[in-house]
Amino acid sequence: MNTKREVGRRSFLKGVVTFTMAEAAFLPRAGAARSVVEEEPNIIGPRQGFSPQIGTLVSMLNWMRGVILASVQGLTTAELDHLVEPQANSIGALLLHLAATERYYQIHTFEGRAWGDWDEETSRRWGAASALGEEARRGLKGKHLSTYLDALSEMRAHTIEELRNRDDAWLMQVDRTWEWGPTNNYCKWFHVCEHESNHNGQIKWIKRRLLAAAKRR
Amino acid sequence: MNTKREVGRRSFLKGVVTFTMAEAAFLPRAGAARSVVEEEPNIIGPRQGFSPQIGTLVSMLNWMRGVILASVQGLTTAELDHLVEPQANSIGALLLHLAATERYYQIHTFEGRAWGDWDEETSRRWGAASALGEEARRGLKGKHLSTYLDALSEMRAHTIEELRNRDDAWLMQVDRTWEWGPTNNYCKWFHVCEHESNHNGQIKWIKRRLLAAAKRR
Repeated sequence: MNTKREVGRRSFLKGVVTFTMAEAAFLPRAGAARSVVEEEPNIIGPRQGFSPQIGTLVSMLNWMRGVILASVQGLTTAELDHLVEPQANSIGALLLHLAATERYYQIHTFEGRAWGDWDEETSRRWGAASALGEEARRGLKGKHLSTYLDALSEMRAHTIEELRNRDDAWLMQVDRTWEWGPTNNYCKWFHVCEHESNHNGQIKWIKRRLLAAAKRR
Repeated sequence: MNTKREVGRRSFLKGVVTFTMAEAAFLPRAGAARSVVEEEPNIIGPRQGFSPQIGTLVSMLNWMRGVILASVQGLTTAELDHLVEPQANSIGALLLHLAATERYYQIHTFEGRAWGDWDEETSRRWGAASALGEEARRGLKGKHLSTYLDALSEMRAHTIEELRNRDDAWLMQVDRTWEWGPTNNYCKWFHVCEHESNHNGQIKWIKRRLLAAAKRR
């Protein structure tokens, strides 16, 4: 089989526009088409089983989550509970805050509920972690790292499952009632993603102080 | 002119795959094609004048930058210089650190230079801001907010100009020598983007302490 000719023929079938291999990766997949993008963690791009842009978002969500997990790996309960000041948030609370944020955006974007229109069970489970502050400081402590990681991975699994059943048209849908102004689902989920980085900056800040305190002892 | 028929004809020319309007937005633009994605700040997606994926990345970079600018708006020189602890970084230094990071990724990805292979002028201008720590604490102070914002916007303008001249194939190019493992340009620039959020988490943390200190006075 002449591969060059095969590629040429496929390019022709795709029409008059000339696609490079990478551009072709962003096209909706035909039945038998193989992904031309490697599914490595540090390769942002389409993912098998997802529409092209949703796959690209999924690759970002996964990449970002890998960074967070590396930050908190091996932390003890005491470290997860530590408050650098009385009014600070613990690393544990910040981790659960990420899971809570993801849950709220799921309900909002997948179930079409207005922001804040959460049922009682949702508010009971996620309210303190979402709001952070005093209630989180009192309630979210004494837990093993796995408690937080389980909550994060439970929420993430649900996100991935829901995204798998949606397409790029859904991702581009614009919400004209959102308080930021016209905002599409891509922007909301990009925010969920970068929000993890925002709090990871704080988690690393707390960790540096934990390390410095340990050195002084 | 029958627009429906025109769209139909174009779909046919694009080949056997059926595109929705949103998916079509991710296709390389033909000469006269109009963007079907609104170019609002909170709409992540293609941008006029850029290839589809690069435009989407540009929309993320712009969105993220808007968040940082909102965080630091109106800060005085004393606030920008404030160290919450002797070993902390100031907000000013963190802002210049973002500009330095962007400059290094420009040289690396646009000029093809290995990471760290910076010329003398680059090292002199950006070394301290990139490394943070003691040299940044000594050198980066006494400056007006505009000094930092000018550096950020100078670097960003150059990024945008370079991205305008590249295509999605470039964005997907994989660097197999990068220390994270195989990594594409999309991942490197996504990291530049989320890295701003990471430090914005720290900037907001410092700001809360500045506000608390101001209240106590």
